[in-house]
Amino acid sequence: MEMGIVVGRVTATRKDENLVGTKLLITQSIGIDGNPLTSVPIITVDTVGAGVGEQVFFVRGSMASRAVKNKDAPIDAAIVGIIDNLDC
Amino acid sequence: MEMGIVVGRVTATRKDENLVGTKLLITQSIGIDGNPLTSVPIITVDTVGAGVGEQVFFVRGSMASRAVKNKDAPIDAAIVGIIDNLDC
Amino acid sequence: MEMGIVVGRVTATRKDENLVGTKLLITQSIGIDGNPLTSVPIITVDTVGAGVGEQVFFVRGSMASRAVKNKDAPIDAAIVGIIDNLDC
Amino acid sequence: MEMGIVVGRVTATRKDENLVGTKLLITQSIGIDGNPLTSVPIITVDTVGAGVGEQVFFVRGSMASRAVKNKDAPIDAAIVGIIDNLDC
Amino acid sequence: MEMGIVVGRVTATRKDENLVGTKLLITQSIGIDGNPLTSVPIITVDTVGAGVGEQVFFVRGSMASRAVKNKDAPIDAAIVGIIDNLDC
Repeated sequence: MEMGIVVGRVTATRKDENLVGTKLLITQSIGIDGNPLTSVPIITVDTVGAGVGEQVFFVRGSMASRAVKNKDAPIDAAIVGIIDNLDC
Repeated sequence: MEMGIVVGRVTATRKDENLVGTKLLITQSIGIDGNPLTSVPIITVDTVGAGVGEQVFFVRGSMASRAVKNKDAPIDAAIVGIIDNLDC
Repeated sequence: MEMGIVVGRVTATRKDENLVGTKLLITQSIGIDGNPLTSVPIITVDTVGAGVGEQVFFVRGSMASRAVKNKDAPIDAAIVGIIDNLDC
Repeated sequence: MEMGIVVGRVTATRKDENLVGTKLLITQSIGIDGNPLTSVPIITVDTVGAGVGEQVFFVRGSMASRAVKNKDAPIDAAIVGIIDNLDC
Repeated sequence: MEMGIVVGRVTATRKDENLVGTKLLITQSIGIDGNPLTSVPIITVDTVGAGVGEQVFFVRGSMASRAVKNKDAPIDAAIVGIIDNLDC
């Protein structure tokens, strides 16, 4: 998983039918100091009630689908936790 | 998923039989400001009626195959939504 | 999928038994202008009769295995089309 | 797999129910000289009793789930060994 | 698959039980000129009898598991061939 900060939200009227009702958040990976990295921003499906500005961690690839109820959803990234604290 | 802009289309007479009839669009990843990034351009299968110049989001890896009807299609990237708005 | 140009061929006497008989081509990713990128060259299994110097597109990861007949072959990249034209 | 050094721990009260009870360690990839690389830090599920400061190796992607008992856990990285020695 | 050169070996007393008995080799990706690239070194499971200094090719991700007998092994990279010759 990667650590990230939620930086925004995507709205899309035309989308795959199995994405209807999902909350799509734009997440930027962060380093252990909490600062954003320069990697590509990722659109993640929120599964834990995250909001803009929160630090989260997200899973990528086919395992992301385990976090959502709809097993036909074509997703490759999902927020699976909200970070309380980084103990480094 | 990643955000991208559709920059072109690929035509290929000789291709895997399970790709016949798919619309293959060249998509460049974009940042949250909408500007193209320098990452490798990706050939994506369009599943939502996207066209050149539109901002989209696309899924990568094995989950992309969930977005297409043909479950034998060897694809690793599919456009699954057209972006209406980025709320950042 | 990524666009690439076939730059060479690998010969290997000692290899996984499920790779015997496959044609292994070295493919370098290209941009939309057709020029080679600086990414790592990929060894791809040819499934469409591609040759050195041709522009192709290839699928990566577990979906590459859909393009080959042998379902036990340990492959993560396969050429699935030869590019006729890029319409950008 | 990649070699890494464990640099910290994540605590998260709100997380996917299938992650409850897992130990989430922040791992930074290292080179063969043991020095940290500049790649994105990865949150890994510890399966071998690793601790901060130890050199480990970790598996990424869907195969990481083979290392954990809970087959519904949405994870894409797991520590699967502690390095005794690098013989280079 | 990627081309690489075997640069070392990892020993690990504490590891996943399904990795016991595997030979874990450190492999650095190489370019078509045979020179090492600057990418992250990968720990690969040897399945073809490779040794330090040999040029090999290796498969990554879930397909790597097809190259090993133990179908519970949590691995994401395996050497599947030794390069005789690069014809570029």
